[in-house]
Amino acid sequence: MSNKVRMGMVGGGPGAFIGAVHRMAANLDGQVELVCGAFAGSAQRSQVTGRELMLADERIYPDFTTMMKCEAALPKDQRMEFVSIVTPNHMHLPVAREALTAGFHVLSDKPATLNVAEVMELQALVKTTGKLYGLTHVYTGYPMIKEARQRIASGQLGNIRKVVVEYLQGWLSADQDNKQASWRADPNQSGISGCMGDIGSHAANLAEYVSGKRITQVCADLNTFVAGRRLDDDGVVLLQMESGARGLLQASQIAAGEENNLTLRIYGEKGGLEWRQQEPNSLWLKWLDQPQQLLRTGGNHSSMAAANTRLPMGHPEGYLEAFANVYGNFSTAVRCHARGEPADGVSCDYPDISDAVRGMNLVEAFVHSSQQETRWHRL
Amino acid sequence: MSNKVRMGMVGGGPGAFIGAVHRMAANLDGQVELVCGAFAGSAQRSQVTGRELMLADERIYPDFTTMMKCEAALPKDQRMEFVSIVTPNHMHLPVAREALTAGFHVLSDKPATLNVAEVMELQALVKTTGKLYGLTHVYTGYPMIKEARQRIASGQLGNIRKVVVEYLQGWLSADQDNKQASWRADPNQSGISGCMGDIGSHAANLAEYVSGKRITQVCADLNTFVAGRRLDDDGVVLLQMESGARGLLQASQIAAGEENNLTLRIYGEKGGLEWRQQEPNSLWLKWLDQPQQLLRTGGNHSSMAAANTRLPMGHPEGYLEAFANVYGNFSTAVRCHARGEPADGVSCDYPDISDAVRGMNLVEAFVHSSQQETRWHRL
Amino acid sequence: MSNKVRMGMVGGGPGAFIGAVHRMAANLDGQVELVCGAFAGSAQRSQVTGRELMLADERIYPDFTTMMKCEAALPKDQRMEFVSIVTPNHMHLPVAREALTAGFHVLSDKPATLNVAEVMELQALVKTTGKLYGLTHVYTGYPMIKEARQRIASGQLGNIRKVVVEYLQGWLSADQDNKQASWRADPNQSGISGCMGDIGSHAANLAEYVSGKRITQVCADLNTFVAGRRLDDDGVVLLQMESGARGLLQASQIAAGEENNLTLRIYGEKGGLEWRQQEPNSLWLKWLDQPQQLLRTGGNHSSMAAANTRLPMGHPEGYLEAFANVYGNFSTAVRCHARGEPADGVSCDYPDISDAVRGMNLVEAFVHSSQQETRWHRL
Amino acid sequence: MSNKVRMGMVGGGPGAFIGAVHRMAANLDGQVELVCGAFAGSAQRSQVTGRELMLADERIYPDFTTMMKCEAALPKDQRMEFVSIVTPNHMHLPVAREALTAGFHVLSDKPATLNVAEVMELQALVKTTGKLYGLTHVYTGYPMIKEARQRIASGQLGNIRKVVVEYLQGWLSADQDNKQASWRADPNQSGISGCMGDIGSHAANLAEYVSGKRITQVCADLNTFVAGRRLDDDGVVLLQMESGARGLLQASQIAAGEENNLTLRIYGEKGGLEWRQQEPNSLWLKWLDQPQQLLRTGGNHSSMAAANTRLPMGHPEGYLEAFANVYGNFSTAVRCHARGEPADGVSCDYPDISDAVRGMNLVEAFVHSSQQETRWHRL
Repeated sequence: MSNKVRMGMVGGGPGAFIGAVHRMAANLDGQVELVCGAFAGSAQRSQVTGRELMLADERIYPDFTTMMKCEAALPKDQRMEFVSIVTPNHMHLPVAREALTAGFHVLSDKPATLNVAEVMELQALVKTTGKLYGLTHVYTGYPMIKEARQRIASGQLGNIRKVVVEYLQGWLSADQDNKQASWRADPNQSGISGCMGDIGSHAANLAEYVSGKRITQVCADLNTFVAGRRLDDDGVVLLQMESGARGLLQASQIAAGEENNLTLRIYGEKGGLEWRQQEPNSLWLKWLDQPQQLLRTGGNHSSMAAANTRLPMGHPEGYLEAFANVYGNFSTAVRCHARGEPADGVSCDYPDISDAVRGMNLVEAFVHSSQQETRWHRL
Repeated sequence: MSNKVRMGMVGGGPGAFIGAVHRMAANLDGQVELVCGAFAGSAQRSQVTGRELMLADERIYPDFTTMMKCEAALPKDQRMEFVSIVTPNHMHLPVAREALTAGFHVLSDKPATLNVAEVMELQALVKTTGKLYGLTHVYTGYPMIKEARQRIASGQLGNIRKVVVEYLQGWLSADQDNKQASWRADPNQSGISGCMGDIGSHAANLAEYVSGKRITQVCADLNTFVAGRRLDDDGVVLLQMESGARGLLQASQIAAGEENNLTLRIYGEKGGLEWRQQEPNSLWLKWLDQPQQLLRTGGNHSSMAAANTRLPMGHPEGYLEAFANVYGNFSTAVRCHARGEPADGVSCDYPDISDAVRGMNLVEAFVHSSQQETRWHRL
Repeated sequence: MSNKVRMGMVGGGPGAFIGAVHRMAANLDGQVELVCGAFAGSAQRSQVTGRELMLADERIYPDFTTMMKCEAALPKDQRMEFVSIVTPNHMHLPVAREALTAGFHVLSDKPATLNVAEVMELQALVKTTGKLYGLTHVYTGYPMIKEARQRIASGQLGNIRKVVVEYLQGWLSADQDNKQASWRADPNQSGISGCMGDIGSHAANLAEYVSGKRITQVCADLNTFVAGRRLDDDGVVLLQMESGARGLLQASQIAAGEENNLTLRIYGEKGGLEWRQQEPNSLWLKWLDQPQQLLRTGGNHSSMAAANTRLPMGHPEGYLEAFANVYGNFSTAVRCHARGEPADGVSCDYPDISDAVRGMNLVEAFVHSSQQETRWHRL
Repeated sequence: MSNKVRMGMVGGGPGAFIGAVHRMAANLDGQVELVCGAFAGSAQRSQVTGRELMLADERIYPDFTTMMKCEAALPKDQRMEFVSIVTPNHMHLPVAREALTAGFHVLSDKPATLNVAEVMELQALVKTTGKLYGLTHVYTGYPMIKEARQRIASGQLGNIRKVVVEYLQGWLSADQDNKQASWRADPNQSGISGCMGDIGSHAANLAEYVSGKRITQVCADLNTFVAGRRLDDDGVVLLQMESGARGLLQASQIAAGEENNLTLRIYGEKGGLEWRQQEPNSLWLKWLDQPQQLLRTGGNHSSMAAANTRLPMGHPEGYLEAFANVYGNFSTAVRCHARGEPADGVSCDYPDISDAVRGMNLVEAFVHSSQQETRWHRL
């Protein structure tokens, strides 16, 4: 019998984009096995997807409540070990709540919840159940991001002065009629923010993860350009960060012609670095008095970068590999947990409940500052 | 019971690089299941890898001959359907021969064999057994390569005049002492050519695949720069191609500082295109009188490009995704074959035995021309 | 006798960087002749530079007051026609004042003056004297910037929503002891702002020039990172612009490792554009539903771009060529003025007194907003 | 009186492209003064250009023979010191011959002559007259090319193994009806080669200049793609170079969509370098075991690079600046010659008669090899 880590999935039924991405990420390294799922809001549609995924019929559930109950009733070495949540945003918490309560670890698509109050509840639940909780801030999974983080932590750039993170997309430039777009603009499904909740939160997470500095104050200007849209589709946030660093976070979904243009630049006293998600295998180091250097995925890098790299230099890794790193590190942590072993550095290196809480607080702070005529708002 | 396509593997044991790559490629889409393997030259080492891969002990074989026999004896719905061959080069043919004879399809790492005579034998065997044979010329699996091929086929560039393909690596710049390097320089394991057989053949395959033109004459200058090395580690080949096109193929493993720099440029009467493997999601179209255009993976492209793309624009796909496309298309063909259904265009779109034969003939021609003081050699 | 436009220069003596740049820009097209100068604060140092420049001794002046008087006394067809001012900032106004009053046109390095009150005085003087006044906002001289401006003006991007301009340098990351650095940090020589006055003003000018939209409100956070420095060395400004557009202006001189990284991105309803000063011959157009296009200097572009281009595509033009375009357009205007002819579009296409006034007001607004805890400040 | 170096020009009349380029290059640094010219084949057209250039009528000559005679008759401190030759190719030698004989230095557009016999004559004449002869291989004037040359000379890359130079243009993809195109395809005006003579010779010069290795054998395949064209418009040449290095030279004028795409890559035992003319301020150094480095114009570079740089990093220099470096270094040599001073390293750093001879021999060798079915041809 296989001893892969056993995963159940909620969401990701017919037509869902992100569910398929999660499954590919889970598949890549052959360490995770999808054993069950409640893939859609109807039993029939759930079954369609489950069969496409070649699951046994008895492990395809009509709804997530049934799934939690039935899986919990299976022998320990058969039942799922963690639940991957890939539903629309407003269902993330309800599913996580039931999963944790039923004794399953959770790896959730982001955002964790729709607001701060909910995420505090979730955090408490994670604590009381003692289960693992992961959040798929996928961009932290890139090897060169981990390299950047370690370079800064080791002091190579000197004290950090300036953090610039941007996440520009153009696909919501016009009023959209598709499924992906509509729930993002619906406060009941997406919470208090559109663009900032959807992608600004990724940017904020990346900035703090790499710089090692937390944001302490924000000053935000959120905008809605498309008529009739109920949430922000663009915004800029000035940042104050720990140790006197300043920052700038920009996110937009109406930057016409941009694809998924997430970039990070950080400047310290001694040098700067630059990373661009659309060419993720390159990390630029810029120095005051020396030529720029180009680090590349697969080179002789830090232990953490190496642990999250699969191929030699020049064999490009991409978004799915970064996503698979989140799955891989989380499932390693699940395995350690099952064995009662402490998780080492690599196994801990996935976004967890503290990132979830942090993200909610940041997005809420952005919205508050913007509503108060772009005043500084302290976190 | 899962109805994934069932794969066995020969090679890919402890310390082997390419075996792990094949397995990730096979895993990614969740359509292929590794059910058995003979992973190494010793039963013990085979078992180490098999267990790491969570295979049942009875499906971990001490050698490939045993594997063919035992698998053939299993019920049809349990036994492997195809064999993935990831051994050193000189074992590709012996394994393929047994696999085909035992009734299994074959997906082989390249080169198919060590010389032309052998590949002719293999071709005959593929024909008589009626089994499928695929060769992992992975670079043809990139979506933008398929887009390039279709753009040229549709005549957008006009008649093709000039094909320039380069494959530059630097990792064999010095005498190496590692496993990867040593078998590449050993004629008994690699055949009559080092660099050209290893990577020049990829370049030639890519040039013909995208341009739609076959090479008709070659004029080659192969070199060995590292003292004591017995095979070429660098070379340039002038090409004459069908319909009067001219070409240039360059490959090197002593281009110090280069990673895995495979590039393709093709020029026709109306325009040109350019693709670089290290940034594989971009395809440049250059026009005589219009601005250059940048096509990106995930855009509105040809059916074949779309069928080999997993993510929206701006979410980079890489080498493993291209590799997974070869696995995906081949396994779809296996599935069609099992059902007695004709393979459609997508299912046929993997490098097959004709590419294997072609590659052997081309490499042999390069060597012949170079040995005859760089004279034109007709294929 | 040559009928080149005759130029005098104030400043640009031994060790001055920008004076030599102005002279190369003036030289390039062979339409301007340097006929006299007061190059430094002492007669002796002025003479050193004047002789290096091969001027006749009688046209090398000990100070600019003498120069204005003596030149005005020369026959009309011999005396200088305009004065190029390349002194430190605090001398720009005094020199311009005397030059205009003495009947000479003025082309001044920026900033025009140290504050708003002074620039209003200058504007009045320009009006009453009827002389031409140009300001070397050199970046507007690049052909692809002119192309960008015309593309937006023609409506190709649709209504403009978002303007992002950045100007990042790293050369003031540490406390500097050189001449270039020291006057920039001295309020008496540089005015109320350091980084924003020096380079933020270029960025603002570029943003308004290309977008065709004026900034209406600003919300700024200016910072000083280097201990002991008396003026800002970094800052970010949120912008509200005409017609509901939003913008972001970022400038820094402590972005360690950056050279002279000025970039402009503008997004409209239909598409976006991107330009980077360090590779100035490329202009990216990004579209909602079509592949990106890369326009290149020398291509089939708008009349204004063509009028400011010297070479065919692929022959890179740079900073000096852009600077020479400012000189060329200004000197054409001088020639038209001398002939009593109206200036056409090209001759008008240089930054003038209105840009000077605008720049002062913007920088002052940035400082005010920042001093008021980053509140929105209306212009 | 000005003591600029005094230049006369032959060619560069109405409609001529390259003459204007030479004049801008001569103007840029203010060290050269155009004092006379014979700009066209008719006195009238010569006068049109001369007046546009604001020359005195008596220094505008109807033909170059008259110019040589009249200038030689002027007082020594007034007459031109060198002649810039910018005529069509077939006139380069006749003008140079008269100029040298009349006692003037010569700076000629390339090629120096139409064939080897002529260039040998020219070389002899240069020797007997003792005059300076320069050839505008402009691409050697780029600062990063000089940096590359010095890095290789200092042994940083180790022994050189591989030199790859490419020069791709697309503007002759179709049959052209313009002046620029027609003389290039006429053997009487261009000599024995089209593309190789025009741009392949630049590529060869660059390869030898930077690598410090001379080409010893060539194996060439020259082609003509456009029907009716009488000279090659495309070609590839395999190279053997001193010390066992191998090389590859590619030139094309039918690479549709390419602008002026000259690139150079050189690989040694320890590392490689890469330079691209269309982004000339970047020089890549690639290492076996260290991250790639990006050197930039204006950085802390070698003395020769610094001597040919005008601006700080991030202020792009381009083609005209490189061209001006050829003019600047040549005119410094002229000045040294006039003073009877020895020329230092900088003053010697321009392409001279030996480069002219070399270029002719190389192009002839390319043609011979290609005519002999692409056999190796020894120089």
